[in-house]
This record gives sequence, structure tokens and C-alpha cells, in this order.
Amino acid sequence: MTLENARRSLEELQKARTAYQHALGLLFYDGATAAPRGTAANRGRTTAVLTEELYRLNTRPETVALLEELDTRRSELTDREKRTVELLIKGVRKMQRIPLDEFVAFRRLGMEANAVWREAKERSDFDAFAPYLQKRFEMSRRIAGYVAPEMDPYDYWLDDNEEGVDRRMCDAFFRTVRQHTVPLLHRVQEKPQLPNDAIRGHFPTPPQERLAHRLMDILQLDRNHVGLSTTEHPFTTSLGTHLDERITTHYFAEDFSYSMFSVIHEGGHALYNTGSDDSLAGTVLDGGVSMCVHESQSRFYENYLGRSHAFCEYLFPILRDIFPDHLRSYTAEDFYRAVNRAEPTLIRTQADELTYCLHIMVRYELEKRAMAGELAVADMPAEWNRLYKEYLGIDVPDHRRGILQDCHWADGYLGYFPSYALGNAYGAQFLRKMKETVDVDGCLRCGDLGPINAWNREHIWRHGHLYRPAELFTNATGESFDPTVYTDYLEQKFTALYDL
Amino acid sequence: MTLENARRSLEELQKARTAYQHALGLLFYDGATAAPRGTAANRGRTTAVLTEELYRLNTRPETVALLEELDTRRSELTDREKRTVELLIKGVRKMQRIPLDEFVAFRRLGMEANAVWREAKERSDFDAFAPYLQKRFEMSRRIAGYVAPEMDPYDYWLDDNEEGVDRRMCDAFFRTVRQHTVPLLHRVQEKPQLPNDAIRGHFPTPPQERLAHRLMDILQLDRNHVGLSTTEHPFTTSLGTHLDERITTHYFAEDFSYSMFSVIHEGGHALYNTGSDDSLAGTVLDGGVSMCVHESQSRFYENYLGRSHAFCEYLFPILRDIFPDHLRSYTAEDFYRAVNRAEPTLIRTQADELTYCLHIMVRYELEKRAMAGELAVADMPAEWNRLYKEYLGIDVPDHRRGILQDCHWADGYLGYFPSYALGNAYGAQFLRKMKETVDVDGCLRCGDLGPINAWNREHIWRHGHLYRPAELFTNATGESFDPTVYTDYLEQKFTALYDL
Repeated sequence: MTLENARRSLEELQKARTAYQHALGLLFYDGATAAPRGTAANRGRTTAVLTEELYRLNTRPETVALLEELDTRRSELTDREKRTVELLIKGVRKMQRIPLDEFVAFRRLGMEANAVWREAKERSDFDAFAPYLQKRFEMSRRIAGYVAPEMDPYDYWLDDNEEGVDRRMCDAFFRTVRQHTVPLLHRVQEKPQLPNDAIRGHFPTPPQERLAHRLMDILQLDRNHVGLSTTEHPFTTSLGTHLDERITTHYFAEDFSYSMFSVIHEGGHALYNTGSDDSLAGTVLDGGVSMCVHESQSRFYENYLGRSHAFCEYLFPILRDIFPDHLRSYTAEDFYRAVNRAEPTLIRTQADELTYCLHIMVRYELEKRAMAGELAVADMPAEWNRLYKEYLGIDVPDHRRGILQDCHWADGYLGYFPSYALGNAYGAQFLRKMKETVDVDGCLRCGDLGPINAWNREHIWRHGHLYRPAELFTNATGESFDPTVYTDYLEQKFTALYDL
Repeated sequence: MTLENARRSLEELQKARTAYQHALGLLFYDGATAAPRGTAANRGRTTAVLTEELYRLNTRPETVALLEELDTRRSELTDREKRTVELLIKGVRKMQRIPLDEFVAFRRLGMEANAVWREAKERSDFDAFAPYLQKRFEMSRRIAGYVAPEMDPYDYWLDDNEEGVDRRMCDAFFRTVRQHTVPLLHRVQEKPQLPNDAIRGHFPTPPQERLAHRLMDILQLDRNHVGLSTTEHPFTTSLGTHLDERITTHYFAEDFSYSMFSVIHEGGHALYNTGSDDSLAGTVLDGGVSMCVHESQSRFYENYLGRSHAFCEYLFPILRDIFPDHLRSYTAEDFYRAVNRAEPTLIRTQADELTYCLHIMVRYELEKRAMAGELAVADMPAEWNRLYKEYLGIDVPDHRRGILQDCHWADGYLGYFPSYALGNAYGAQFLRKMKETVDVDGCLRCGDLGPINAWNREHIWRHGHLYRPAELFTNATGESFDPTVYTDYLEQKFTALYDL
């Protein structure tokens, strides 16, 4: 095979992979947005057929031979090609170890379980979802066993979400976070609570939609390539390449800030995905490199920017135009304090910055113990409720606002939750570094996110998968990971807010 | 190969075909509903890859060998299997004659041209769409040449939409229709016009949405398997099997009847598709058999039922609940007369029953002559306008309300328009036959479409593709096609309405 031919075949392979991933992603997106309720099984069948084709495409002898050929000729390849081949080989090797029927069943389960989870959540009926959760853990354990029999299965999934992350690292990280946030939260709780009536009332959907679109423009999302829909649980889906991203939100009538921060959070994901260098489109290097880096961006926009004093100042007059009756008697300061009120609550996606990681720790503990076989699925709701009491001091009234609140386990994201917490911590270091060269507060105060986006694009987005997550992090920040930057940020912010 | 193995392979083949068609249909649906504007090229690339896979699946030696084997063993097959093999072989033979790149380009053009058409229509800019229309005619001519070089290319496409239909048949049919409707329209025009202010005013989207959902329930659509979205041009898409149908509508603020009749029309398509016998799901026999029979159902619900006196009587109190301020001063009779006002207008989908076929004749003439090379694409807008003047007596003010109004040519439906007119005529005979055993007006007056749907299910829907269209028609009506049943219906209805 000439190098020229091999390069062409490599391009064809990536084109086909991208197409299948686009179709599979769209089936999932359709299921969560427009699809009628009774159609999950039909989507499951199509997903199974396309997943099987994708598996065959990746593991067929021609593909393996092509990648091995290119691997032996690494010295002739560009850096990009080397990384492309490295990632493809890694993926193919992984896939080869998983039997076809298991591989297909895993993907199909995600499609079908999402529909079951949605209905179970509506009815607060854990038992309806339990068999799917059971299957999810069993399958995940088996798949980890096929791919990396030498590893602990939960470590396998943590590493799958973020190369290099394992239980040891998470345990240490969460210990640090807990040591700082729990006493801080107690000090906060001794102070008079910040009122949040500025964001609470009755807000019809149409003005909330206007706000969502306005926020997408403020984030400078490319509206030609980023769409907005509504779903039970907000998420971002990349349809194959950074040329088609979809974010979703959920409008709650009683609190406009829920959808507002969902749009900013998912907008952060979409900025990252669409920010890949155009030359990466349709290749395996396209899009966000890992889940922690992804969450570092989404939570960066949601919290470091979205909940900052400067941004609240900028946004408030816009909000007052959109909700004039409600906001007439409030100030930007009221709004800032309302969206930063720290208190233990039931729902992760509505949590403030201070209590957020405690929500993650509950999920981390449950996943870890369920994967180790130390916690039965049937006992998970009680354990969920016990840990919410222990970590956050609150009682969980029903499964809808308890263990059924998130879609991740239904969709197949095991080992994902720690990414949110680690992403928070990454973001604090990105912010500190960014502030050396960008007047972040100045930008936010006048609503021009251009220079902030430019920094992220330069140091994070454009690189796609070119660097490993840890490498990308070090290149961007010039330092290694240090969670105390994050806990210092929380300390400082909430000391000022609550006058500690 | 044992017959048992062959049967299993046949099932596998159909399962894979269904999956690819589901994914391709969903890509199209997404493009018309949720997708951001700049994503058509990305969808085009994925469509090309999946279309190529579908082509390979259908034309690969194993598939051809399987079908040939089964064909030689017809005597051992059930009637269903015989028909399945017959249809698959017909499709494969057709595909084999079309070069792969042409086959892919044809499908891809549909995906990309829809986005161009939508923007061109918005800006009323025919020149932006012309190159795509040009390609559409060129490609359609070439494809007809590959598959059936002995046939006239337009006859090929007419037959592709409805087996047995050709220009000779259409010319004769349209002549009959024209001979009856034009003098009838002239007599109507000499009478005082029926007022239509009952349906015109200002109607916000939310109550129109409520009406759409109410109508879906009245039609007894299975909401678990039929979804509703909004698009520029209303349509129905079947996502692979009769288990997942999507209808769309378009809400116009100034006239609630537009979306109302769109929902009933598309609902008719969805009833037909979802009415296939469950045992046909996922097979090539599933869904509506042809375009004329499809339109016979959609236009049956829209007109023979939706615009009937009995249904208007039933619906009016419901409408008055939904639009109380507007309808307070009107009666059911006013409403019935408003939705049956006959007058030449610009937009086909808003046309009354009497002038509707004249809109179709304009499109038929244009298609026929453009396919024959007698009319250049550049000259089509002028010819469109000239024919609207000749047939309907009105001036076309812009291309948006002229040649750019319909999506069919963009999407690849050449030779489709006559189906609407033929469907109207089929429907008149279905109605006459149905009335022998069903109290249609009685059912409509109390809003119970059960017995009407049951008749259609028994005689039309459940059979899927089991019978050829002409066979299905004769089985259902006990007679052959006779367009004067349709023209008599029009004569009678408008004589009474306008007191001729």
C-alpha cells in the first residue's frame, strides 16, 4: 500500500465512522426531543443495526491492517496523523475485545433505557427503572472485564471518561474538596440566608425562550451550527462533527434561572465542540478531548462567568426587559445574591457552586460501591437518601427528586459524574491563568465574551483531541492540577457573599 | 441454501434496509425541523455515506443470489413472501441499473436542496434555487434513462409514484377534471361569494397548537407512535416502520384553518401508515403502497371528512372553546361555508376542493415539459405565472407565492403532484363505497371516526404493499377507476353551497 493510498483509506474510514456516529447521535437526540413515546423499541432496533455496522467497520481486517501499516510507518506521518492513528488503534483494540453482541447491546440499552427512565422519573417509580440500572451495572462490569481484565472495573470507566483518573485520585480529590467545603458551608449556614425571590415567581415559557436565545447570542455561539431544543434533562449532543451541535434546556415556570444556567452550561459544551479547528472536522480528532475538560468548559461558563458579579451586572437590565413585572423591584445585586444563595437542595443541576460537589460525591460513592458489587441496585435508593442526609443534611421526599433525577445511568454514562467536580477544579486554574492576560470582569461587565472565548479557543478548543487531557491542561495553565485553587476560589467567593 | 436459512437471511436483509431507511428519514426530518441552518452539508455527507451502504446492501452478490434463489422457489413461498421477493427484486434491479455515484448524488441532492429551497423561498429568490432545480431535472432524466431507457423519462417517474400511471392517463384524467371544474367554477364566480371571515383574524400559536393536538385525538391517531412538529411546508415522514410516524404543520396567525387542514391531511397519511398490519412492521410490505393511494387517504380526511357539513357541525363548538373571542359571533354554518369558499388563490395547500386540481395541472404541465426538454428551468417561473393566469385567472405577485411555494422538487418528488389529483378522485369512489355500509355523516356529526377508520383499515391500510395499487383499489371499491364520481361529487357539493 502506498502512503498516499493509506492516507486516502484513513480519510474514508473516518468519514464512514463520522456518518454512523452522526446517525446514532441523531437517533438519541430525536428520542429525547421530538419522538413519540412508544417509539423507543423501534429506535433501539435501528441503533442495534447501525452499531453493528460501526463495529464491523472498525474491526474488519482491512481497517486493522490499514492502522497497523500506518503505525509501522509512524516516522513518515505528520503529528496529526500520528495522533489520529494512535486514537483509532486504541479504539479498535478496545472494540475487538468486546464481543459484537455485547457491544451492540450496550448501545441499544442506552437508547431504550432513556425512555424508561423518563417515564419512571415522571411517576417517581424506581422499580420500573431498576431492571435497566441492574443491566447497566452488569454490562459495564462485563465490558470492563473484556477490555481491561487487569483493572478494577470502576477504574476502567473513570479512565474511559478521563485518561488517568482512578478511584485513588478521586478519593483524594473529593477528600480535599470535602475538607474545605463542608466547614465553609457550616459557616455560611450560621449567617442569615441570601434571599432568592428575585429569580422565583411565575415565568411563562415564551419569555424564557427569548432569554435562552439571547444567552446563546451573548455566548457568541454560531447559530448556524448550534441548535436549541427542550428535553426532560438538559444535554449537549454533537452530531458527528463540530459543524452540528445541539443543546437542550428545560423551562421551569417557577424559576427562570434554571433554564438560564442550563443554556449557559450546555452552551459551554457547544462552544468547546464547535471551537475545534475547522481542519479537524470529520476526523477522530474533532471535538472535546475528554469529559473533565468538557465539564471544565460548561461549568466555566455556567459558574465562573455566569454566576459572577460582573456578568450579573451586565445581564440584569436584559432580564428586566424580558421579565419586567417580576424584576421591577429588584436590583442587579439582588439577582447576583439570588443565583449564589448557598444551601443544601435536592437537585444537582440546580445546586449552587458551594454544595454542587456534595451532590457529585453521593453519586460517586454509589457508583463505586455498586460497581464493586458492594451495593445492590435494590438498595441504591435508600443509600442515595442516606447520603443526601449525611452530606447535605436533607431528606429526599421522592425518587423523582432523588435517585431518578439524572439521565446519566440510563444513557450509559458510568464514571461520568466525577467529571463535573474535576471540571469545576480544572476551570478554577483556567480562570486564574486567563486573568493574567484577559480582563475577564471587564469583558463580562460589557457583555463582550470575545476575548474570553478567544483565550479558550487558543488554549483548549481548537486542539480537539490533538493532546491528551493532562497535556492540554498543563499546556494551557503552565502548572499541574491543584484542587486548592478551586477550594480557595470558593472560600473567597462565599466569604464575601455571606460576610463570613 | 435451505429455505429456513433463506427466510432468515430475507428477514435480516429487511431489518438492515429498514434501519438505513429509518436513519435517512430521520436525517431529512431533522433537517426540516430542528436542525440549525448551516448544517445541511454535514447532513448531506452522512446521507451520502448511508445511502452508499444501503445501495451496497441491496446490490451485493449475496443479496441478489438470495432473492434469485427465493424467486426460483416461489411455489414453496407464502403469498406474503412471494410479494416480498417480487418487490425486493424490482427494487434491486432498478438500483443495479443506476451507477452508485448517481444513486448517492440523487439522495444527497434532496437533503441539500431542501435547505436551499427554504432560504430561497423566504427571500422569494428563484435564482438561488434554479441550479438545484436544474440538477433535479437532469438527474431525474438520467436516472430514468438508466432504469428504463425504453420509456419516456416523465412516464418513468409517474409510474414510479403510481404503477400504471403515465402521461396519456394523466392527460385524459386532467381533461375530464378540467371540463367539469372550469365551467362549474365560472358558475360559482357568478354567484355572491361565501364570506370567510369566520376563519380569518389573528390566532396566536398556543391555541392553534391545542387545536392540532385535539384534531390528532379526533382522528384517533396513536399518539404513542405519531409525533407532531412544525415546518415551513407540512409533510409526513415514516421513520422506517409504521411504529414511528411524524406529521408536521405550519401555523399561520391570520387563518387557523391552514394548520387545521394540514394536520387533518397529514393525519390521513399517518393513519394509513400506522394502519398497516402489525405483522408487516419492519418488512418491505409495511406502510402505504403508492403515492396516489396515500393522497387518497390524506385528502379523504382533509376534504371528504374535514370539509363536510357534518364534521364542521361537530367541530365548531370545539373551535369556539379554543378561539372564544373570535368565534363568538359565528355559527357552524358560517364556519362550513368559510372553509368551502371556492375561489382562485395562489397557494395550493390553501386551495378549496374546486380549484385544487387546477393548481396541480400547472405543476403537471411544467414538469412534463421540463422533463421533455421543452421548457428551460430559467423559463419556468414565467410559465408558472402564465399558467396561473390561464387556469386560475390570477396574477402571481412573487416567487414565494409562486413557483417556490412547494418543497417537492427540492426534495426529489418529480411526478408526484398528479398523485394529489388522482388521490382526490380515488377518494370519491372510496367514499361512495364506504357509505354503503357506514353512516359516515352520522359518525362525523358525533365526532366518532371509529367506523370510518375501521372501513379504511379493513379495505386499505392493513394491506400495506400486499396488493398493487390498482388491485387494492378494485378490491376496495368493487369497480374500476372512474373520475366522474369525483367530478359529480364536486358538482353536487358546490351546487348546493352556491345555490347554483
